[in-house]
Amino acid sequence: MTQVAPQIQTKNHTGVYHPPLAALRSHSLFADMSDEIFSDFSHAAQELSRSKGAILFMQDDPAEWFYFIVSGWVKLFRETLEGDEAVIDVMTSGHIFGETAILDGGIHTMGASAVERTVLIRLPASLLKSAITKSHDVALGMLASISRHRRQQTQEIENLNMQNAPQRIGCFLLRLCRTNDIEAETTNFNLPYDKSLIAARLGMQCETFSRALNKLRKQTNIDVKGAAVTIPDVADLSEYVCGRCSNEYPCSDLH
Amino acid sequence: MTQVAPQIQTKNHTGVYHPPLAALRSHSLFADMSDEIFSDFSHAAQELSRSKGAILFMQDDPAEWFYFIVSGWVKLFRETLEGDEAVIDVMTSGHIFGETAILDGGIHTMGASAVERTVLIRLPASLLKSAITKSHDVALGMLASISRHRRQQTQEIENLNMQNAPQRIGCFLLRLCRTNDIEAETTNFNLPYDKSLIAARLGMQCETFSRALNKLRKQTNIDVKGAAVTIPDVADLSEYVCGRCSNEYPCSDLH
Repeated sequence: MTQVAPQIQTKNHTGVYHPPLAALRSHSLFADMSDEIFSDFSHAAQELSRSKGAILFMQDDPAEWFYFIVSGWVKLFRETLEGDEAVIDVMTSGHIFGETAILDGGIHTMGASAVERTVLIRLPASLLKSAITKSHDVALGMLASISRHRRQQTQEIENLNMQNAPQRIGCFLLRLCRTNDIEAETTNFNLPYDKSLIAARLGMQCETFSRALNKLRKQTNIDVKGAAVTIPDVADLSEYVCGRCSNEYPCSDLH
Repeated sequence: MTQVAPQIQTKNHTGVYHPPLAALRSHSLFADMSDEIFSDFSHAAQELSRSKGAILFMQDDPAEWFYFIVSGWVKLFRETLEGDEAVIDVMTSGHIFGETAILDGGIHTMGASAVERTVLIRLPASLLKSAITKSHDVALGMLASISRHRRQQTQEIENLNMQNAPQRIGCFLLRLCRTNDIEAETTNFNLPYDKSLIAARLGMQCETFSRALNKLRKQTNIDVKGAAVTIPDVADLSEYVCGRCSNEYPCSDLH
């Protein structure tokens, strides 16, 4: 099994938060929380490291913990009745997951697993539940957090409805290149995880993904060799992709 | 223009709520609200009737009101940069929309229009905003409401990722037949709105919808003539559709 630090040293001798806790503090769920309540969370926080493929929880598990990603990638998924995996989301550092179980009868409505070696902070779900019940500010923080998530889901439903497969791949790449380098005309970066997971994340079979990526290559002159992506002209790619979206590039939720 | 009753008579002489207000009161946003705060809402409520196609608000409009559907259907949509309409949701009686604008900087992130003659109650967005800021119970009601909506969106993303076009149509029909008659082996009902809108709601071009409906007919012996739907065996249809979903029939969000 992996190491669990039972408790993080919350602040150093100059009173500065342990870096992962400082990142947690700036998340919309915690940003407006009183120091007193945040102190309860920071003292209950446990830092853990999980290796590639490790399950954090399964769909229908009682929610004992919720999680903040310090580094790495986490996949949220469900299993269909036929036993196939539906990838609902793939999240990286700065994101929280599992927290909404307290609004779903204390049960996780999705499973979660580490896509690669991932460092997380886990926090007791019961603490969040009682903080929301007791504190109006925490309830407002939870509203801000869930509302941001709802906006992303609405955008995703729009894109799944309107964009074809090459455009959805292009959209996925554009959003990555935004976080790397927006000014440069030629942009290089690596895919953050396996192509098979990207395909599942975009709701495509692997063969559909390959065909669509080839079409995207021809239409926009992008180059994808293994994990290495080269986008010769971001504006070209954006022109191909963003016309079928209600948002102009760069996407407002990445601001 | 349509008629706006500046104020609804909130209760009759025996102290019973005007029926649309009683329905509003039972919505998760209002269910746990104090009588005092609900009274502010009921006194500010305006009942209105809108004809087919009438616009309630456009994307990016400042949110003056939010809405509760008393009867009829409302379409929520966005416009892509190329000018096509992306249908995000189609809602009927008992649902609220436009309320989350107060969490999105006071701006509607979607447009809304009446799909047919529709009766609504509209309520001032500013009243909801101040009630959430002042009252912890209202904030918790908003959390319950938005969290239910988030669950539905998650289910929709899963279905868009996993189900093929005939299965998505089958799923749409199954959810309707659940609300009509779940016991009968042969179930008859009418489509709630135009096939072209159903196609858009399911993220399909009209031609794709027609082909997929034909395939569904052959696979499950359902019959669709104009708006009239006959499902000879709900279990058969469910077997074809629900294997590609994580939820067993009948769907948990319809309970």
